[in-house]
Amino acid sequence: MPYLIQQRFKVFMKKYVVGVDVGGTNIKLGLVHPRGVVIARSHFPTKPFSSSKKKLIGVLAHEIEKIITSQGLKDKDIAGVGVGVPGLVDFDKGVVRFLPNIPGWKNVPLKAILEKKLKLPVYVDNDVKLITLAEWKFGAGCGVKNLICLTLGTGVGSGLILDNRLYRGSANAAGELGHMPLNEKGPACNCGGFGCFEKYVGNQSLFALADQVMKKSDMTTQKMFALANAGNLKALQFWREAATHMGNGLVGVVNLLNPQLIVIGGGVSNNEKYLFPTIKEVIKKRSMSLQGSMVKIKRAKFGDDAGIIGAQVLVDNA
Amino acid sequence: MPYLIQQRFKVFMKKYVVGVDVGGTNIKLGLVHPRGVVIARSHFPTKPFSSSKKKLIGVLAHEIEKIITSQGLKDKDIAGVGVGVPGLVDFDKGVVRFLPNIPGWKNVPLKAILEKKLKLPVYVDNDVKLITLAEWKFGAGCGVKNLICLTLGTGVGSGLILDNRLYRGSANAAGELGHMPLNEKGPACNCGGFGCFEKYVGNQSLFALADQVMKKSDMTTQKMFALANAGNLKALQFWREAATHMGNGLVGVVNLLNPQLIVIGGGVSNNEKYLFPTIKEVIKKRSMSLQGSMVKIKRAKFGDDAGIIGAQVLVDNA
Repeated sequence: MPYLIQQRFKVFMKKYVVGVDVGGTNIKLGLVHPRGVVIARSHFPTKPFSSSKKKLIGVLAHEIEKIITSQGLKDKDIAGVGVGVPGLVDFDKGVVRFLPNIPGWKNVPLKAILEKKLKLPVYVDNDVKLITLAEWKFGAGCGVKNLICLTLGTGVGSGLILDNRLYRGSANAAGELGHMPLNEKGPACNCGGFGCFEKYVGNQSLFALADQVMKKSDMTTQKMFALANAGNLKALQFWREAATHMGNGLVGVVNLLNPQLIVIGGGVSNNEKYLFPTIKEVIKKRSMSLQGSMVKIKRAKFGDDAGIIGAQVLVDNA
Repeated sequence: MPYLIQQRFKVFMKKYVVGVDVGGTNIKLGLVHPRGVVIARSHFPTKPFSSSKKKLIGVLAHEIEKIITSQGLKDKDIAGVGVGVPGLVDFDKGVVRFLPNIPGWKNVPLKAILEKKLKLPVYVDNDVKLITLAEWKFGAGCGVKNLICLTLGTGVGSGLILDNRLYRGSANAAGELGHMPLNEKGPACNCGGFGCFEKYVGNQSLFALADQVMKKSDMTTQKMFALANAGNLKALQFWREAATHMGNGLVGVVNLLNPQLIVIGGGVSNNEKYLFPTIKEVIKKRSMSLQGSMVKIKRAKFGDDAGIIGAQVLVDNA
């Protein structure tokens, strides 16, 4: 079929995408419908293969083939495979540059290896970029021209949709909102910086703050959420402090990028009721009036599926 | 002539642009060659017309016509007029929303008024965006895909070229790098925020810091530059402190936007030798390694002409 006609009928041809979300603990796979619905899922643990990239990639290729055939589909029904990894990726070359939490992954030409094995187009990108694509195309930021997708967790990352496109930066390394300094003389961060946003709102820092506030040594954000629900004043104050840092960190990007929307995802964003009102209040109060008044804050729509759904957008836009 | 052929021969047709740079003190005009060279200049003071926008726009239209005829040109030789103003502009509509330093300019449809008077296409934009376009097309950032153009002065602003285009944001208000917080609990800023970048590196703050360091009450950056040149240790320390704040403020955008280049302009950037080495050192030390190692810092090429030359790019890209 001629290329242009093929493009035109892509949706009607119902070409599926296999999405792969590589994590330090598990590797999740999903077969994604062109409209962003996951119709089949599978997963396998990362750890048993941590000593051998080759074995891991072999098993991954096998699992990709398995999920396709499990639905009675053939290669011709598959538009491509999208893989999200937690680290630096040379997107154009499909090379994984470095994964901080999965040892031994340095300069791995994952796209080339998988394409050779699968005989399907493969695209590899950073996982936060895939989450951002999912939220922008099918989720909380559907149809928004300029948005920031913030992911809160152990690491704090973000993806930027600017002028209706994923902005990658000069080495596909844009979006490190977690490493914008919030205080020049703040605590040292692993990245080499000081007072980074992540040092205030990353999980490790929130756990430490919770310990300090509650004078204990085993606090988590889940426990603080439960305590806040029970009306504990210290826990409420904890969330207010955490949300104030979040708001302060976002003021900078609101003024710099003038987005319409900030989508907030990641585990801690489940505590929406203790975070979002304060975040909104801080942005409203501290941002410039035009930028602050027009930006909306929404919770991410997709949870664990976000990376897999984003793979569909990645392949579709390629 | 058919449109496509017209586009192709645009350069050979040598269509000039009239660039207008509206400032609180003077309004500068220039006739700009398609290759970004200013071939004629004029200016008139802003203040005498501060009570009447109508009179000011009338004189401006007259001066635009005068600069065209002064070179023996006719309207058909002019591709358009580009006007840069120091404030908020609705670019699509050509409406000046608000100019903090020129009283009474609120929601002025400057494009429509000038087009009616001149019978030429007119484009109106924020002045820092025009400076950014000039540096990107003909200046220090010529041909760079992702760059930040920082302007240091009483106000601290920036323009963002992302993926080879001027990024405007959702209300043409992107680029307020001067209002990214550098310290959550820093001094209150006029914008409503706290600890904004501008509160550390804007001229008023630098003058105050200079007074404090020198224990005087009339210091300026020019005086501090002369003192540093004479080997005054306090002045050298002053520049080091100023440059450290500048570097710290840029670390955030380097990590967030992963640019190849930061162009620094504005009066204080003349003191390059006391600023740039420290700025580079701070970025190298505090940014993430990939982003920090690839970003270059350059001084802006154009001084007072930047806005006028940028008008050429604005009209040409329209």
